[in-house]
Amino acid sequence: MDVPAGLRDVVVTTTEIGDVRGAEGFYHYRGYPAIDLARTRTLEDVWFLFVEGRLPDAVERLEFADKVAALRPLPDEVREVLPAIARAGEKFSPLAGLRTALSLIAAARDLPPVWDSTPERRRADALLVSAVTPTILAALYRLRSGLPPLEPRADLSAAANWLYLVTGEMPDENQVSAVQSYLVSTVDHGFNASTFTARVVASTGSDVVSAVAAAIGAFVGPLHGGAPDRALDSLDEIGSPEKIDAWARGKVAADDRIMGFGHAVYRTEDPRARMLRDIALDLAARGFAPDLAEFAVTVERRIVEILAELKPGRQLYANVEFYAGVVMEQCGIPRSMFTPTFAASRVIGWSANVLEQAGGGKVIRPAARYVGPPAPQPVPAA
Amino acid sequence: MDVPAGLRDVVVTTTEIGDVRGAEGFYHYRGYPAIDLARTRTLEDVWFLFVEGRLPDAVERLEFADKVAALRPLPDEVREVLPAIARAGEKFSPLAGLRTALSLIAAARDLPPVWDSTPERRRADALLVSAVTPTILAALYRLRSGLPPLEPRADLSAAANWLYLVTGEMPDENQVSAVQSYLVSTVDHGFNASTFTARVVASTGSDVVSAVAAAIGAFVGPLHGGAPDRALDSLDEIGSPEKIDAWARGKVAADDRIMGFGHAVYRTEDPRARMLRDIALDLAARGFAPDLAEFAVTVERRIVEILAELKPGRQLYANVEFYAGVVMEQCGIPRSMFTPTFAASRVIGWSANVLEQAGGGKVIRPAARYVGPPAPQPVPAA
Repeated sequence: MDVPAGLRDVVVTTTEIGDVRGAEGFYHYRGYPAIDLARTRTLEDVWFLFVEGRLPDAVERLEFADKVAALRPLPDEVREVLPAIARAGEKFSPLAGLRTALSLIAAARDLPPVWDSTPERRRADALLVSAVTPTILAALYRLRSGLPPLEPRADLSAAANWLYLVTGEMPDENQVSAVQSYLVSTVDHGFNASTFTARVVASTGSDVVSAVAAAIGAFVGPLHGGAPDRALDSLDEIGSPEKIDAWARGKVAADDRIMGFGHAVYRTEDPRARMLRDIALDLAARGFAPDLAEFAVTVERRIVEILAELKPGRQLYANVEFYAGVVMEQCGIPRSMFTPTFAASRVIGWSANVLEQAGGGKVIRPAARYVGPPAPQPVPAA
Repeated sequence: MDVPAGLRDVVVTTTEIGDVRGAEGFYHYRGYPAIDLARTRTLEDVWFLFVEGRLPDAVERLEFADKVAALRPLPDEVREVLPAIARAGEKFSPLAGLRTALSLIAAARDLPPVWDSTPERRRADALLVSAVTPTILAALYRLRSGLPPLEPRADLSAAANWLYLVTGEMPDENQVSAVQSYLVSTVDHGFNASTFTARVVASTGSDVVSAVAAAIGAFVGPLHGGAPDRALDSLDEIGSPEKIDAWARGKVAADDRIMGFGHAVYRTEDPRARMLRDIALDLAARGFAPDLAEFAVTVERRIVEILAELKPGRQLYANVEFYAGVVMEQCGIPRSMFTPTFAASRVIGWSANVLEQAGGGKVIRPAARYVGPPAPQPVPAA
């Protein structure tokens, strides 16, 4: 059976996790508008929603927050090897380091295949991998910076703990709220390539960590999208408002992509961009990097106008990347940790997709059409 | 667009690497019957075929064999950490260990994304990952056994070096030939789940090692197939010819799968099983575990009869797993290294698929159909 290239719009499975409605500029988690969740709920509430299929009640939310906080400390097998992992390479690749550490956990814990394990065991593995991911990423950053890793604090929320582990300081509550909204809004977003990778691996019956480690490999691909540091680099490059036009027109003329604009699915403004713009301006009003936020808004408006002029009908708007970098900068997150921050929430989405895939279904194994030399050819003697 | 579950027979891409013709019991690499290659060519010749798209000439085959032999030594960044990786876990998971080590190489070498790198660089990365995989696997085995890893020997062929690294002894030439045929016959086999995983990751533009590391996650899944130790475990369980019937009928009655029989694609005997049976009997004639090989043939013939009787029309024959374990046992490979031996050749196939996918095409990103509660639902207050 022939289908569109890249399997675009080919339905590979059903899901109860969520959906992205590109034409409406709307996405949801299990029926709840994701942006509403991002504005009103903790990351732990939404994490519970992903794993359990419903929002927690008042007792469950406290219990669950305690449970996942207790899973945060670095596993012993990782603690020993992490300095060597952090040292590896001239560039700092926190996500390759995370994958290395998770792979080690999979080996050390003899994780059972998802199809041979109980739902309870799978959920426990999924919670562990999601809970230790921020700890590992922050520890890699600290080690790489020549600092000892900080111990996670069980008295802090997941969002506050993340800021604390990365910056080494107790975060301001406005920063915590901003980062939490970003984290909630990026837990999941349809069947992107990393989520699909996790599901393919889970469909073989492999273990939860193998599926998440595989997803990381897709996540770091430049075509995956969602690297907020690139958009902030562009703001630095532009530098001042009077340079926007020349910069943007030069990019379009050179057929270079303008990072932070356009989306594979949305034909409207990305709802995450809209929320993050509001958050950036709110933080600015409270004194967090006000010049950056205002400059970003100026750049966004002008680039949208220029793209509408130069690429009419293409509906190119700011995407999640554009304001994510601004908000993270306002929250004191170093630029090398922007994409790791995204991974720290997306791991919850990957895990939930693994749990759903593990519940049943066939191995995901499509076909390829052979178009090489006709077979059989005789094998010549060596 | 709706398609069969698991994307069965859905054509996701074209390929020039090879094809499996299930109805004919035939598969090929770039047009050459894989079994003919396995009987007449070195692993290095076939490796060249996968990477370069053609068989090498007389000069090229020597140059290529030297080139990949020179890539065998453990990278420094792996050497340091491998003892800790080998220690991890109560059970020995060589493939989780391999993935950990490869992930470390990806971080240490700052591997470029496949879509931002030159074809030469991608090929170099693909050769490296394929060349070091056997070294890493064998070193993990030795460390886990309390022995120091052996240095790979550049004066040995890939197949001979593999046996040497695993067993610690200079292998007999008949054993080398047998293992080489097995390795060549398992380099690639259509769009199985691990190969597809590698291609999904490569389609995001990620690096070669990320794609191979992801493939390993699918490869260890119990539904992936190809774990020869399980078939040999069955032979042990049966124990003697008079117990075959009761054992096999009991399995069928309990709806348990009989490992080593049946295949997702072949409706005939698996051509790899046929070749490996011949090799097992040939080794037996030379004095290598003759009782085991003859017992395996007896078991195979009787189980095929019983399956034809109890599951008429299902066309269940021995698959590659059944005789692979027998041959590896005859060659002195320890049982925990059977699946790693398979991985040591399949990594060449994964790498070639990554190179082909990196040459172009879209991100592989299908869709899912949301079937959960209707959206939007109002978010209740916490």
